[in-house]
Order: sequence, then C-alpha cells, then structure tokens
Amino acid sequence: MDNLAAVLHGPYDVRIENLQVPVINDDEALIKISCVGICGSDLKLYSAGKCGQEVLDGPMVMGHEAAGVVVKVGGNVKGLKAGDRVAIEPTQPCRKCEFCKTGRYNLCDEPQYCSTPKSPGNICQYYKHVADFCHKLPDNLTMEEGAAVQPLAIAIHACNRAGIKLGTNLVILGAGPIGVLCAMTARAMGASKILMTDVVESRLETARKLAADYTFLIKREYSDQEIVEKIINTLGTRPNITIDACAFPSAQRVSMLVTKKGGTVLVVGIGDTTVEVPLSGALLQEIDIRGSNRILDTYGPAIAAVSSGAIDLKSFITHHFPMDKIKEALELAKSGAAMKIIIHVN
Amino acid sequence: MDNLAAVLHGPYDVRIENLQVPVINDDEALIKISCVGICGSDLKLYSAGKCGQEVLDGPMVMGHEAAGVVVKVGGNVKGLKAGDRVAIEPTQPCRKCEFCKTGRYNLCDEPQYCSTPKSPGNICQYYKHVADFCHKLPDNLTMEEGAAVQPLAIAIHACNRAGIKLGTNLVILGAGPIGVLCAMTARAMGASKILMTDVVESRLETARKLAADYTFLIKREYSDQEIVEKIINTLGTRPNITIDACAFPSAQRVSMLVTKKGGTVLVVGIGDTTVEVPLSGALLQEIDIRGSNRILDTYGPAIAAVSSGAIDLKSFITHHFPMDKIKEALELAKSGAAMKIIIHVN
Amino acid sequence: MDNLAAVLHGPYDVRIENLQVPVINDDEALIKISCVGICGSDLKLYSAGKCGQEVLDGPMVMGHEAAGVVVKVGGNVKGLKAGDRVAIEPTQPCRKCEFCKTGRYNLCDEPQYCSTPKSPGNICQYYKHVADFCHKLPDNLTMEEGAAVQPLAIAIHACNRAGIKLGTNLVILGAGPIGVLCAMTARAMGASKILMTDVVESRLETARKLAADYTFLIKREYSDQEIVEKIINTLGTRPNITIDACAFPSAQRVSMLVTKKGGTVLVVGIGDTTVEVPLSGALLQEIDIRGSNRILDTYGPAIAAVSSGAIDLKSFITHHFPMDKIKEALELAKSGAAMKIIIHVN
Amino acid sequence: MDNLAAVLHGPYDVRIENLQVPVINDDEALIKISCVGICGSDLKLYSAGKCGQEVLDGPMVMGHEAAGVVVKVGGNVKGLKAGDRVAIEPTQPCRKCEFCKTGRYNLCDEPQYCSTPKSPGNICQYYKHVADFCHKLPDNLTMEEGAAVQPLAIAIHACNRAGIKLGTNLVILGAGPIGVLCAMTARAMGASKILMTDVVESRLETARKLAADYTFLIKREYSDQEIVEKIINTLGTRPNITIDACAFPSAQRVSMLVTKKGGTVLVVGIGDTTVEVPLSGALLQEIDIRGSNRILDTYGPAIAAVSSGAIDLKSFITHHFPMDKIKEALELAKSGAAMKIIIHVN
Repeated sequence: MDNLAAVLHGPYDVRIENLQVPVINDDEALIKISCVGICGSDLKLYSAGKCGQEVLDGPMVMGHEAAGVVVKVGGNVKGLKAGDRVAIEPTQPCRKCEFCKTGRYNLCDEPQYCSTPKSPGNICQYYKHVADFCHKLPDNLTMEEGAAVQPLAIAIHACNRAGIKLGTNLVILGAGPIGVLCAMTARAMGASKILMTDVVESRLETARKLAADYTFLIKREYSDQEIVEKIINTLGTRPNITIDACAFPSAQRVSMLVTKKGGTVLVVGIGDTTVEVPLSGALLQEIDIRGSNRILDTYGPAIAAVSSGAIDLKSFITHHFPMDKIKEALELAKSGAAMKIIIHVN
Repeated sequence: MDNLAAVLHGPYDVRIENLQVPVINDDEALIKISCVGICGSDLKLYSAGKCGQEVLDGPMVMGHEAAGVVVKVGGNVKGLKAGDRVAIEPTQPCRKCEFCKTGRYNLCDEPQYCSTPKSPGNICQYYKHVADFCHKLPDNLTMEEGAAVQPLAIAIHACNRAGIKLGTNLVILGAGPIGVLCAMTARAMGASKILMTDVVESRLETARKLAADYTFLIKREYSDQEIVEKIINTLGTRPNITIDACAFPSAQRVSMLVTKKGGTVLVVGIGDTTVEVPLSGALLQEIDIRGSNRILDTYGPAIAAVSSGAIDLKSFITHHFPMDKIKEALELAKSGAAMKIIIHVN
Repeated sequence: MDNLAAVLHGPYDVRIENLQVPVINDDEALIKISCVGICGSDLKLYSAGKCGQEVLDGPMVMGHEAAGVVVKVGGNVKGLKAGDRVAIEPTQPCRKCEFCKTGRYNLCDEPQYCSTPKSPGNICQYYKHVADFCHKLPDNLTMEEGAAVQPLAIAIHACNRAGIKLGTNLVILGAGPIGVLCAMTARAMGASKILMTDVVESRLETARKLAADYTFLIKREYSDQEIVEKIINTLGTRPNITIDACAFPSAQRVSMLVTKKGGTVLVVGIGDTTVEVPLSGALLQEIDIRGSNRILDTYGPAIAAVSSGAIDLKSFITHHFPMDKIKEALELAKSGAAMKIIIHVN
Repeated sequence: MDNLAAVLHGPYDVRIENLQVPVINDDEALIKISCVGICGSDLKLYSAGKCGQEVLDGPMVMGHEAAGVVVKVGGNVKGLKAGDRVAIEPTQPCRKCEFCKTGRYNLCDEPQYCSTPKSPGNICQYYKHVADFCHKLPDNLTMEEGAAVQPLAIAIHACNRAGIKLGTNLVILGAGPIGVLCAMTARAMGASKILMTDVVESRLETARKLAADYTFLIKREYSDQEIVEKIINTLGTRPNITIDACAFPSAQRVSMLVTKKGGTVLVVGIGDTTVEVPLSGALLQEIDIRGSNRILDTYGPAIAAVSSGAIDLKSFITHHFPMDKIKEALELAKSGAAMKIIIHVN
C-alpha cells in the first residue's frame, strides 16, 4: 500500500516520497488523511528550516492541521471505529508529567507535537495517532472544515486565556489567519465590539467580512502613541482585552498602552527573543499579560461551534491544492495573499 | 406637573394615582419614564401581596423594568444629562457594606431595590434614581427594548454564575421569560446545544423560535428518572450545565440527577422554603449547586448585546398596554399567555 | 517470596492470606508496604460490606492509605528507583476520558481506586502501582506520616474546593479525622477563626488541641435554628465557609442556614441518598453548595506542608497495630475512640 | 485645638506645622492619630518631590500608614464610635466608577489616596477619613501594629494577585519591607519553600529570620542566566511563582526566565518606564505576568492574620521616632538600614 507524503528536507526542499504505512499500537488509530491546512509554522520551517525553538534536524513529514477517515483502531480503543471521520488534534502528550496531570497538557514536557522535529506531520496518505486525540466530525462538517478546526482550536484557546465574555470590547492586532479566527471566536463568545489592525489592507477587508466591526490600517510612520489614540477614538473606549496576534514588538507595546485598567493583553504567536516594552505602567494598572500555547481542550468546542453555525469556517478557507502541488501552496502562503490553504491528500 | 403612577394597595388592588414629582439630590437623575416591563414578581405582589421574603406593607408604586428620558441631573452627576435615553437598573446599593465593596452589590445589605416595600417602583411618569445606575441607551435600541434590558440583565447574571462558555451543552428547565432569556444569552455566549423543558407546549414553541435547539414537554406523570433519561436521549449527552428557571422541587431534583460530573446546576428564581433533593450524589460528582441573585454588572453587556444584534429583544416583547390598563396587563401576565408585556407610561 | 495481606471476605470477615507477589508492567513500581492507615470507608466495607455505591463482590485486599519502599520499577519509569520511600496516591486513572484530560482525574470514568471492588487495596506486603502516582517522601517524614498523607490530601482537596484563604472565618461540622485535617489544612492556608462542632466531646478536645479556635458540642435536642444561633454567637459572625464533614442531614441544613451571603458550603463525605434542605434561601444569597471527591493534585502540597512543619501529622496519628491485629484495629476504629490508626505491615 | 502635622514642601523640606482640625461630614470619622509608618513612596516624595506619576505640587501632609483612635463620627456612620481604635485604609474611592462597582476599587478613577498630591496624608494629630475605610483593631494589636497593617495589606493583595497557595514554591526578588511582608504572607497562606534575593546581605539576614527558607545574595557581576541557575539549584526546582519586589529591569528579566511553565510573575512596585525583557519565551510557556496595585479588601485579612498570630508584625517593626524627628526618620529610611519605622504622633 502506498503512503505518499510531503517531506521537508531543508529550506525550500519539500519532496513527495513514498513512506511505509505506519503500524498502530493498542491505543492508536490509523487514519487515511483527506485534508491538511497550511500554517504559519509550516511556512517558517519551509523557508528557514526552523520555527521558534524547533530546528529541522532531518527529513520531516510536514503538516499538523489534518482531517481524515479512520481505517482501523487498536485493541484498547473505545468510541472510535473504522469509517469514522475525524479531525486530528496534533499532539500526543505524555499524560504523566505534572502539566498533563493538572489539566494543562499543552505545556507537556514531551508533547510529541506533529511536524516538530521529533514527531512526523500528517501531509501523507496514512497517518497514525493516539485515538483519544482524534475527534469525530459531525455529518454537517466537510473534511476541509475538519482540517481548519486546528487553527480554530488555537484561536479558542487564545480567547479562553484572554477571558473574552459577553460584552467585551476587543482589539486584535494582526489580521492573519489566527487573528481573524480569534475575532470569529470572540464574536461567538459574545464580544460586543471588535477592532482589528494590520499593515495590509486586503487582510482588513477579509477581517471586516468575517468578524471585525472596525479595522484600522497601521502605517509605518505611526508612533505607538498615535496608534493607541486612533484605536481609542475608533472603538470609542479603551478595550477590555487586546490580543496581539502578530507578536511584533510594536504590537506588544501598543497592547500594553491601549488596554483598559484591570484588563488583559493576550499574546498568541512567537515574538522576538527580547522586546522593549512599557511593562511597569501596564502592571500598575493590573493589566494582565498572558500568552497562549497551542491547544487545550478546544477541539470539542471548535467542532461544536462550526457544527451549530456559530463559527463559519467555510468562508475562512480560501485556497485548495493537491498534495503534489505542495510547493505552490507554500509559495502562495508565503505571499500573504491567502487566508487558509487546504492540501487535499487522497 | 402631574405624576400619574400605578400604585398597589393590596392583592388585586392597583390604582392610578397622582403623586408628587420627586426631588433629586446631587447624585440623582430625574427621569421621565417611557416603558416598564411586567415581571413575575410584580405578579406575585399583585396577586398575593408578597413575593419571597418581601411583604407589601402599604401602598407601593409597582414596576422595576423601566426605561425613560433624563429630565435633569444633580450637581455631582457626570456622564449623564437631560435628554439622555436610559435604562434604569432597579437597585441603589449602599456602597459601604462588605458586599458592595467586594464587587457583589447584588448582595448589598440595604439595596433599595425598586418596587420592594421600602423602595418605590417606576410605573409612574416621573421617577428619580441614583445617576450611575441609569445606563445610556444607544440610538439603535427602542425604549421597549430599554425596559426589557432588565430581565435580560437578570439572565446574563444567571448565565455568568452558571459559567456558560463556547461549546457548553445546556439544559434549561422552565421556558418562562427568564428561562427563554437565559437561552438567548447562553446562545450569545457560545453554548452549542440548548434543550428546554416546560409543562406548557406554547412556551416551548416560543423557546424553539427564539433560542432552543431541542424542547421537551414535561407531563405530570413522568418520574424524575424518566425526565432525566429523556433529556439525555434528546441531547445526546448529559449537559455540562443545567439551569433551573422554574424553581420547582422536581426541577431541582432533575437538575442534580441529569448534570454531567464536574458540571453546574444554576437555580434562578425563588423556590420552596425546603426541598427534598438527591444532594449527596450530585456533590460527590463535584456538581456545583449555585444560585443567582438579581443583577450584577450586567446592564452594560445586556445593552451591548442587544445593540450589536447578538440578542434579539424585539421578538421577546409580545404585548403592550398603556399605564391605565395596568390591571388588564397584570391579568394577561397571570394567564401565562404572554412572554413580555410592556406598559407605556407617557 | 511471601506476600501476606489483609483480605476482606464479607462483613466482619477479614483474614490474613498469602497472595502472589504482583508482577509489574513498564509503567509500574513494586512497593514493599510499610504503613497503612485505617479510613472510615474501610470501616464501612468491614462492617456492612459496602460503602456508598461500592459493594463488596468478592474477597478484596483492604486499605488505601499506604506508604512503603520501592523494590523495583518498570522500564518506562523515570524519577523513581528501588529504595525510594513513597506515599501511594490510591488511584490509577484512565488518562483518556474527558475528566482526566481536563485535569479532573478524581472524576475519572474508570479510576481503579484502591480497595474498591475492582481494585485491590494495599494492606499487604507487596503492592504494585503506576509509578507516577507514587510520591517520594522527604527524609524528614516518617512512614506513618507517609501513610497519613492520604487523608491529608483528601482534606486539602476539600479545602481547595471550599476556597479557603487568608482571613477566612470557617465552621466545620464534624470533628472526625477528615474534619480535623480540614481544620489543620485551613489553618495552614491562613483561615483566621475556626469553629468545630461534633456530638462527641472527646473529639472536640482533640480538635481544640490540633486546630480549632472554638468548639461547640451539638446536643440531640438542639433545633437547626438553635445550632445556627450558637455558631454565630460563638464565632462572632457568620462564617464565610462551612465544611460539612459529617454529611448528616442536619449538618447540611445548618450549613445552608449559617453561612454568610456569597459564601460556600462544602460537603466532604457521603450523605443520605436524599435530604430535605433549605436550598432556595441559600441559593438566593449566592451561597455555593459544593462537594469534594477524593484527591486531585494534592499529594505534593500535602507532603510539602508536613515536611515544612505547616501541618503536624504526628499528633494526628494516635494508634498503631501490626497487620495480624487488623481486626482489633478495625474494632477500635468502629468505637470512635481513635483519631488515626496505622497498620504496620512489614 | 492643635493639629501638628508633618508637611512636605519640597525635596528634603519637611516641616512641622499646626493645621486646622478637619471638619467631618455625615459619612466620616475624625481620628486622633497614634502611629504612622514610613513607606518607600514617602521617601521618594521626600527626596525627589515625586513618586511614579505623582508629582508634589504644593505643601502636602505626609504619611499613609496610620492607626489612631476615633474622636467622633458623622451622622450616617454605623459600626464605628468614639473611642474605637482603628487602622486607616488610605484610600477614599469614588464608589461610582466601573472599577469601584466591579469590586476593584484599587483601580478607582478618582481614589483620593492619602499623601498623594490631591489628598492629605496622616502624619498629623487629627485626621478625617470616610468611616467605612477605618478598620477596627482587636484588643491584642498595638497601635504600631495597626500602622503596619497598611504595608501588610499591600503584601496580601500582591500575594492574592500572585495566587499563592498551599505548597507553592516561591521566589521573591528584593528583601525590602514589601518583599519581606510578601514572604510572611505567603508563609501564612501555605507556601512551602520561599527563596529571597537581594543585593544587601543584612536584608537577607532579616528575611531569613522572618520568613525565608533560602536567601541568595545578588552580586553585580552575575548575569541574568547565572542568577536563574543559582535560584533553581538552591530551591531545587523552578518556582511556581516569582514576586518581583524591587522592580529592577534585571529582576523582571530573571522572573520571566526562572518561573516554571504555567506559573506567575507578580510585580509589586513601580519600575522603569520601559524595560527590555524576554517576554515571548515566558508567554509561550503560559507564564502570566501580573502587577499589583495598592490594596483591595485586604485590611480585614491583614488584621485577622496579625490577631491570630499567623503573621508577626512586631518583629517587622524596627525603629520608632516622635513626629518632630520626622526628618531623622526619613534619613534613616533612606539609608536602607531600617525595616519598618514608626512615627509616634500624639
């Protein structure tokens, strides 16, 4: 049985190769992959051979936003069977470290996260995964949506950490895929006014279409203070919560300056190693600065929200490629012109 | 200047009387009332002369769900001026007791809550209130909606206490006005599946139209256990949260039996003095039993949610009466055939 | 190699038998047991053949409050080795159900809890357990204290669920071992005034010695209301938190009547199937009613608190028996005259 | 009637002057001051004429850590009477802004905080204050302790914001008065291991005597990374929580680098306007960065903890001066040789 896969060998060197079909153990499921989304971290690995702390140290199957159909399951697996359509939560935590045991498996010491150097990705025809991190899809979700559940689960975790609630006034700095999904999620959680900023006008157009009430184009010449004032004027108030979804130093500074007393700054994404920020002023006003790491218990809510219509992933997905056009897909992603690209594997 | 008011003198004895126009102090606003909603507690006072612990001990102006236009403000008042359209949060807490100071003014020792024996209601032409509990209405809210913000604020506080979040599976027992508003609120907060029950089919119809995914008519002959099973079968799972919005003993028992381990039972409303319940089993499963008292910081979110379209109060309001038909309005409310009745005062 | 064990065959029928030494898998440790405490649930199984939902359905090794020395560990085990002294957290959760994954393994669907019908206890010479639920003891803890860490971990979880904090005024109804450990824990968490009640004066004496500021003997003839008044008079205020550590119907009623508005009633222990309680009044005052199930992440804090001297387990341990005197130990426990009895196994 | 007061006219220019005895309104109490502590912010105002955002703009009575005896109370005051000994919480919030109403009066828009430019301090013989922010002292507290309740209340609020609990491993950077009180408070809340650092060895001696398990002298030549390693080696683990009680840039960097994944960095105090920090790494590990502003609902717990013996303020108070030696007191404070200096006023 063939198992064609998109294997990254180094910067700009992605090859379609035929791998062994994986053999499952008693707790795992073998999945025939249908769709996999392209993520910003795929792009960083593709173009630089590294992403944050993760450095490519050998050939690696790409991808971690996958949905597929269960082919078979191991002997201990309950609640999942061949034929089930699933979205794959791309982690396999150790379940024994203090983080796993206290309900924070996203901080697991040895998470085996898909498409990081030690754990293969799932842009391939057959992929195995621990069964309880494969989430069944309701009939009214497509496989494309199933794949896009992954970035949505990231956004929901970020919004959970930010503490969005009914009536929140929210600013999101950065209108890339995660920023836009945060806005859609925040809307579904009851946020009342959402203002988004970006440096690219086309992204703001999409943002307005999908979730933002107000948008505001950042120009290079604006000072932090000018941006702060424009945000307050446009929103009519300081935001209760600011989500920094671009992790630029300027965005982190603006977040700290613009948020209302007692509010929260939530950073999703990987920023510079060090950053110069007006921290003391924010902390004196009891503005909490928080980060968000990957996904924690949010596949269930993500699937439920798409299924109920609370969040519309269809309009979030903009482009499609077959697996053998992976290079074209990655180049398009790099251009910034796409919101979400889906690779069709089988 | 006339100040016609609906004054309750005893059970079934409500009279339109001309009172003095109130004189404001430095922190108050004088409001020309436009609309006032009729609430279940108005009904209890009207038909029994008491409601829970509150006993009518003299003539009392009825009503506490009011919206109107500011006529003048006291010397210390900021942020409010003559001509402003406002919804009136019907409490005037002491601001000095430990509950006020710790951010729980709904538990204030001396709350001066409208239309309780010591504090007049606002079905009258002119009413005074402490200015910072008068909340400005945006232009896109009608005065009728402004009045209905009050029960919505009750429902939002109940949902806050219940801990509704994105993906919550929710059961609401009782499809009266508060139950239905809880469903609409829970939907706006991201609840994924909502099942409502009632003993009256017509209420369930309204519930389905406004917010419920599933409804289920309770028949007198059903045992608690049968109700529990039907709920689980219909919802496809135990609910994370059960809201008891009727405060019947049977509803409280069913809540404790049906909720998922680690979940929450939230009771909104006043039940029997004592009740026989399967408490130990629920507590052993760490199902929290919580109540909700009136309103806490939820006028802002309520107004924002109506203004943004997240919650549609227009379809919640079903009947209208002029003040001099107050008796007819109360009799209609008593019949159970109306969802929300608005009294038009001026 | 012998493996003598205390095996319960039915009510009052406990026998010392020689079992096979268990064989460990890759994730387990084999432990030579030193000390095991006797718990109220042991007593219920011994005298009635059942405890709550758990019914004895065949011979079962008793005990679940054990400490011992690691003899060997499986191939996957890190951080534990032969010779380590450990306290054994008596659960082996599934790690896959939604409760385990959301950090509530105490609510696990299939917990394999020691000395429940499907899982052997550890009053035996050799016992195997999943290694990451064996907690290393610091040098300054005795094995007796190591055994008593288990009920302390129960009490800490109860106090965590109750939300004890610096300055809390606390009432504990019931001065048995768990009530007393809750008091000691609450003191270590900064509770300021602690009042305990019981129906046995000798228990109150111990309570005063170990942790209570005030005690109050409940007499059979007292009405609920009298008890409430005496508590308020003695404590000088209503308590912020009331812990019901006896699960009597009267205690649950008193808890709901005596607690301050906005406070918490925490029930630890298994009460009657149904109970008649003044629930509505408590819920209207936003008094939360919560239960506490077993242990969640509290072995670490328990061991740390004993090691630092914040909690003195030595004075909590009152009696010692060798394993072959298990029947005498159980009869003493039944008499109510002991606080904590330790069985010495090897 | 004389009312001698310590009035600051400019840097190093503090004068004893005779002021009018203040006239109280219906909600206020007139207090004959006994003792007032000297705080770091007094020192900044004294030596630089400003403290953070607050700039001295005219003569100002110094001091905000006061205890005294009530002389008379206004007509609306309940629960306080002439002769009561009280500790004065040095704020008079507006009670109307959104922060006051949501239980965060420490963030009040117009707090009237003692000894800031718009609000007089209380190093004077007679001082008036809103009565419900005067907290009665139990008989077993001295007036000196009553004054020192203020910095303790600051420390408790910081520890509340940090989320200290039973078993927390804690690092505190900076062993000045607030750092030491945080350690004493954390101990009373059940922290298990506390490590403190400072650049002055004598402060670490005091810290060890009062609350720290481990101390560690920071030398100028240490790199951030060296400090991190020494802390981990000494404590035997990364801390769950790090409190930065010196607000040096280096301390903020070390806090972010040393704290355990999922933990909290709490900054108490006013740091540089901007600071260069390794923020992204901390946020990716979901280490929350929080600040603490003044006092929120912590006078009660502070007084209770001193009264019960959980916190020993007597050994925290090191020096005493009469009011007319205020200059000597301030110079001693400036030298760093004192822990807590008390001014005796009457």
